[in-house]
Amino acid sequence: MHDSPADIAFSMLVIFVSAKVLSEICERVRLPGVVGEILAGIVVGPYVLGWITPNPVTTVLSELGVMFLLFRVGLEVKSSELISLGGRAGFIAASGVVLPFASGWGIATLWGLSSVESIFIGAALVATSVGITAQVLAAGGWLDTRASKIILAAAVIDDVLGLLVLAAVSGLARGRVNYLDLALTAGLAIGFVVFVATFGTRAMGRLIPGVRSRMKLAESEFALALILLFALSLLAAQAGVAAIVGAFLAGMALSETVERRVHVLTEGVTALLTPFFLVGIGLHFDPAPFRDSSTLILAGVLCVAAVLSKFVGCGGAALQLGRRDAMRIAVGMIPRGEVGVVVAQVGLSGGMLTAGIYGTIVFISLVTTVLAPPLLRIAFRGRANA
Amino acid sequence: MHDSPADIAFSMLVIFVSAKVLSEICERVRLPGVVGEILAGIVVGPYVLGWITPNPVTTVLSELGVMFLLFRVGLEVKSSELISLGGRAGFIAASGVVLPFASGWGIATLWGLSSVESIFIGAALVATSVGITAQVLAAGGWLDTRASKIILAAAVIDDVLGLLVLAAVSGLARGRVNYLDLALTAGLAIGFVVFVATFGTRAMGRLIPGVRSRMKLAESEFALALILLFALSLLAAQAGVAAIVGAFLAGMALSETVERRVHVLTEGVTALLTPFFLVGIGLHFDPAPFRDSSTLILAGVLCVAAVLSKFVGCGGAALQLGRRDAMRIAVGMIPRGEVGVVVAQVGLSGGMLTAGIYGTIVFISLVTTVLAPPLLRIAFRGRANA
Repeated sequence: MHDSPADIAFSMLVIFVSAKVLSEICERVRLPGVVGEILAGIVVGPYVLGWITPNPVTTVLSELGVMFLLFRVGLEVKSSELISLGGRAGFIAASGVVLPFASGWGIATLWGLSSVESIFIGAALVATSVGITAQVLAAGGWLDTRASKIILAAAVIDDVLGLLVLAAVSGLARGRVNYLDLALTAGLAIGFVVFVATFGTRAMGRLIPGVRSRMKLAESEFALALILLFALSLLAAQAGVAAIVGAFLAGMALSETVERRVHVLTEGVTALLTPFFLVGIGLHFDPAPFRDSSTLILAGVLCVAAVLSKFVGCGGAALQLGRRDAMRIAVGMIPRGEVGVVVAQVGLSGGMLTAGIYGTIVFISLVTTVLAPPLLRIAFRGRANA
Repeated sequence: MHDSPADIAFSMLVIFVSAKVLSEICERVRLPGVVGEILAGIVVGPYVLGWITPNPVTTVLSELGVMFLLFRVGLEVKSSELISLGGRAGFIAASGVVLPFASGWGIATLWGLSSVESIFIGAALVATSVGITAQVLAAGGWLDTRASKIILAAAVIDDVLGLLVLAAVSGLARGRVNYLDLALTAGLAIGFVVFVATFGTRAMGRLIPGVRSRMKLAESEFALALILLFALSLLAAQAGVAAIVGAFLAGMALSETVERRVHVLTEGVTALLTPFFLVGIGLHFDPAPFRDSSTLILAGVLCVAAVLSKFVGCGGAALQLGRRDAMRIAVGMIPRGEVGVVVAQVGLSGGMLTAGIYGTIVFISLVTTVLAPPLLRIAFRGRANA
């Protein structure tokens, strides 16, 4: 039982206070607050203080938190701009899939892991967690830059590619890959994203003014925005991509039409819920790699590979845009966050990964996620080029 | 499993869309939107369409919804004004406890129910759900009136009295009442409420300006407000009163200090979460009374008694304030809402109530809750005196 009012208030209090205290401390030593909120999850989580274990309350609020985070970021982005960057972003995303997969798979194979485990490690290194990057970009006020828009577009494309890798990997692990299924999955996912990105803005441009003038409900425009958010998140999940891709597309479809008040009300919701997403990542910290020195070395090597492969893959592909933007994009694609954890969970629940490898993947996700925000801040503040 | 992103998005979508559609329909036929949102819960709930059954997602969001609703109402109320009305509100609340208890108990006893069941029915009629009334008052912009402030003060006192009735009733049902425990419970609950109401505003008046100037966090004032909300909700639950009483006191403690932005951000959260509270009440609709004509008659009689006893009890005690305010206050205390359901659940889980009596109490809660908003609207618009 985690759902009495007192239990809920307790979880909310512990998570919120720890997130804000560690965030404040991080800001004071010039680290992004995001890092503090993730660390807060480790501190109050099962392996350190043990005050909070992941439970339905934390899961629901953390899922909602990342949905609203991406929705809010979408509200700041115009679809026309993103579409015009689509081709280049696609190239960057693809390059950021191939290199991480190859290096993760290669290192694991050389290390002597089974081929299924190696493939899962490769797949886990592919996933990009756009939530963390989006939060840092939004908090810094950098969503308006070209680099930010390419990161967001590439992250959406990366999610579709990651879905295909995961589908293929799950098939391989079961012994055979159904290429027709794979093609259908790809077609559905790509079709959904392209359709909403292309026609969403226009549809909302027609719908919203009518709603504004005709509905008798209080806050009817915000209500409509929320309905679009939930509907596209659900459709995205049904189409096989992450629910947060739908949330992002919902925000983007509304970005040119809704009034300022919808933005502010959304900020209220994200201010409440985002800490639950960030703390939730930390709550999944698993000290498995620390129990065994050889696993720890493997985890360390893979962390370096995870950072370098995305950095070189995405940065190299973006080099045409100039060194500064290439650097920003390269860094923005590093965090694996909750997406890496999801890949690991698929493998664990399918009996294809040992607890040690599961813990290793979670560890890599966490390290890359904590590393990215300070690097992003440096890249966007331009100190790296000073 | 109700916590995959797709499941969460599905629950959010169904609940939100049904709430807003029925709310819009109600507004168009001049009923308050609140009624539509409660009806939406019945419609999508287990006994009609069966799309949503109460689950951890709906429970968590509904608990948070009513917490934020009361917090938001508290933000509009000055503690000094409420305290000055305390004596009169106490008299009204006490009178609104005695008459409903006596009539519920009396009718049930005459009907031939056991003494434990009769006492539980009496206790269920005592509970006032301030959430519904607060939402109608806030939506109508009537929080500023004297009648609204007396209703809120009386509802807080009523909650303390209701706690004592429930504690005594549970004791009686177990065969004996521990008067020392009862006195301690009363002392703790009263002490908590009086202490926070008296010193909260002053404490926040000193704390907030310091936070505003010293913290490096984004939205630090909103973060502090949320922390106070969760902390006082938890303390209230620990002190034995409802968590929402703590939420209300937290809002009130901040009402004279926080900047406008905290109000707006809170409105964003309540716009998202309040429908989950209202739909959640409807989800608990239980058609038990309809299965058996004699239970249905009893339920009908008790509904009439529930409305009349609060109306006469509170209205009579408020008559000194003039007929218009007495009417407003009398109507504002009618809804039993989720509080009646809680009493019924205590009885059911303790094996002291049959499913039929449980269903009857839930039914009364629902009827009084749906009835109150239109009556409130009439009382506050002054049509009743036209």
